[in-house]
Amino acid sequence: MPIPARVRGATVWLTGLPSAGKSTLAGLVADGLSASHPVEILDGDEVRRSFFPELGFSPADRDENVHRVGRLALLLARHDVTVLVAVIAPYRDARDRMRQLHAQAGVPYAEVWVDAPVDVCAERDVKGLYAMACRGELTGLTGVDGPYEPPTGPELHLRTDRDDVVACTAALARLVDRLTTGHLDLADR
Amino acid sequence: MPIPARVRGATVWLTGLPSAGKSTLAGLVADGLSASHPVEILDGDEVRRSFFPELGFSPADRDENVHRVGRLALLLARHDVTVLVAVIAPYRDARDRMRQLHAQAGVPYAEVWVDAPVDVCAERDVKGLYAMACRGELTGLTGVDGPYEPPTGPELHLRTDRDDVVACTAALARLVDRLTTGHLDLADR
Repeated sequence: MPIPARVRGATVWLTGLPSAGKSTLAGLVADGLSASHPVEILDGDEVRRSFFPELGFSPADRDENVHRVGRLALLLARHDVTVLVAVIAPYRDARDRMRQLHAQAGVPYAEVWVDAPVDVCAERDVKGLYAMACRGELTGLTGVDGPYEPPTGPELHLRTDRDDVVACTAALARLVDRLTTGHLDLADR
Repeated sequence: MPIPARVRGATVWLTGLPSAGKSTLAGLVADGLSASHPVEILDGDEVRRSFFPELGFSPADRDENVHRVGRLALLLARHDVTVLVAVIAPYRDARDRMRQLHAQAGVPYAEVWVDAPVDVCAERDVKGLYAMACRGELTGLTGVDGPYEPPTGPELHLRTDRDDVVACTAALARLVDRLTTGHLDLADR
């Protein structure tokens, strides 16, 4: 019989295009875990509005947003909170720095690529951003006229266009469980 | 024999003039508690630098800083962290709003007035701010040419000019203990 492991904090960064399913999956997993884990979702739009409203969407501001959200996640994860970050984080370098920040602090960290082709995301268009970009009311939208550098070594790669939401949620929940009970190692990739 | 109460999160806001002793007392209490409580210090200068570097020291920016620090404290305290906030927070209205924010969330909150006369604080001048103000290199310093609205109903009033650091630390630790184990009521004031 396995010895029950203590639940420890972790940061799980869900990166991907707008409308790829980051917030949806974070919400579903958080609902499922909240009875057993202290869980917090750091949702891109909400965190910006609440804490960093000065930051815009230039490359430098996006990086700065990622760094601040990462520090906030670490602050919570160090106190045994499971932090699900739902932030696009288009640049690989900024994401890698958040991984390093957590490694230096000895706090578990995983990157999840919430992946769907841009045409699928544009069809979902949860927040109407793709429509705005199409009408020329918005520039620099990630995946349209703003870059997205795909993860090269994510702990989990979810294809939300191919796999249904139940399967994606289950895969993410398993990752969180392994990470927060200390059973994730690199061989799991 | 009393039943041991579960430790729950709380926000304890240490308000007072620069060099009144806020960070010192927060540090000493945190050191003493960290074995039994998850503790986080939100120190004014550090939090600004890390999360809100855009904010200055105008009345509006000071209020916004207090609101953001308060929301950050609540985020942590909701996950059972004991949060010691060491931020001047010169305006009563902004402080009262942070108290209300915590009350609405059902999270324990206490205000601690870390009090010493301005001449004592200026003599300590831990960060050299009073000297800068004296030389005309800094304007709007709280207690000099910036207002400080004293608390009217703090849960604890520490006179760091009269009482030694051991006594002040002990009083603050007792408050935190009552607050986080559910034994603080208004009759304790």
